[in-house]
Amino acid sequence: MPRKSDAKMRMIETAAILFRAKGYHAVGLAEILAESGAPKGSFYHHFPEGKEQLAGAVIESSGAYILHLIDKSFVDAVNPYQAVEAFVDAIVETFKRSDFQLGCPVTSFIIEMTPANEAIRSQIENVLESWVQRMLFHTKCFEATRTTSLETAFRMQLAAIEGAWLIARANKSVEPILMTKQLFPKMFDIKN
Amino acid sequence: MPRKSDAKMRMIETAAILFRAKGYHAVGLAEILAESGAPKGSFYHHFPEGKEQLAGAVIESSGAYILHLIDKSFVDAVNPYQAVEAFVDAIVETFKRSDFQLGCPVTSFIIEMTPANEAIRSQIENVLESWVQRMLFHTKCFEATRTTSLETAFRMQLAAIEGAWLIARANKSVEPILMTKQLFPKMFDIKN
Repeated sequence: MPRKSDAKMRMIETAAILFRAKGYHAVGLAEILAESGAPKGSFYHHFPEGKEQLAGAVIESSGAYILHLIDKSFVDAVNPYQAVEAFVDAIVETFKRSDFQLGCPVTSFIIEMTPANEAIRSQIENVLESWVQRMLFHTKCFEATRTTSLETAFRMQLAAIEGAWLIARANKSVEPILMTKQLFPKMFDIKN
Repeated sequence: MPRKSDAKMRMIETAAILFRAKGYHAVGLAEILAESGAPKGSFYHHFPEGKEQLAGAVIESSGAYILHLIDKSFVDAVNPYQAVEAFVDAIVETFKRSDFQLGCPVTSFIIEMTPANEAIRSQIENVLESWVQRMLFHTKCFEATRTTSLETAFRMQLAAIEGAWLIARANKSVEPILMTKQLFPKMFDIKN
C-alpha cells in the first residue's frame, strides 16, 4: 500500500508533466486526478487551496529537478565549459525522449500566471536565481577573480537555453538547444 | 463609421494584447469581444473557425510587429552591433511601458498550442525564422564572408532575448533583457 506522501508526490509529478506538455490552464483537475490515479478527497487533503497550491508544489519540484541536472553536469566536469555542455546535453536528452513535448518546467507558469500572481511570480524568480547561484557555487574554486564575467556568462547561457527550448518546441527540433553550446565559451573566454 | 476591416484589426490587436498578458487559454471570446467592442456576429464573420483562427491571425500580426522592430533597429544602425542594441532597447521600452505584462507575442502560443497543433506550430516556426532572415537581410552588405558566424550570433541573440523576456517577466525587471546586449559582440567578434 503506497504511503500518503507517495500519492502527493504522484500528483505533483503527473501535474508537472501535464503542465509542461499542455500549459497550466489547459489541464484541469479531473485530468490530473485521472492520470495520477488519486481520488479527489486525497487531492484536497494535500492541496486544500486547490490547483494554484499544486502549481506552487510543481514549481518547487521543477526547481529541484533542474538543480539536479546542474549538479550532475558539474560533478564530472573539469571546467565550466564541460559542465555547460553536459547540462545542455541533459536537457536535449529529456526533450528528445518526450518527443518535443516537454519544455522548461517553469515556462508555462511564467506565461500563464505572472506577473498577475505575485506569490507564484516571486517563487519563480527565486527558482530561476537558484539555478544561476548553483552554477556559481559549483565553480567557486575556478577563476575566482573572474566572478562577474562568469556570472554574466551563466545568466546568458540560461536565458539562451530558456529561449532555445521554446524555439525547439516550435521547431520540433533539438538543434536550437544544441546551438547554445557555442555561447558559453564565447561569453566566458579565459584568454580575454 | 469604422470599416469592416477596422473591426477585424481591432479584434486581432485586442486579442494579441490579452493573449500576451494572460496566455491563450485564460482569455475567452467574451473578454475579447468586450474589450474590442465587437459584436459576436462580426467575430464569426471574420473568424468562422473561431478562436483558433484568431490565434493564427494574431501570430501573423505578431510576426510582422517584431519584423517592424527589426527594420526600425537596422535602418539607422551603421553596424549589426548598433542594430542589436536598438532592437533590445525597443523591446525593453515596450515591455516597461506595459508594466512588465507583455512578453514576446508568440511565446504563449508555443507553450499552450505546440507541438500538438501542427498548423500553429509550423506557422510559429516560420515566424521565428523570418526574424533571423530579416536580420541577415539587413546585414547582407556587411562582412559577406562571415555569414555563418553572423547567422549563429543572430540566432543566439534571439534565443537569449526570448529567454530573457520570460525571466524579465518573472522578475518584473528589464535587467535580464538589457543584459543580452553583451551577447552579440561576444558571439560575433570582428577581430576573431
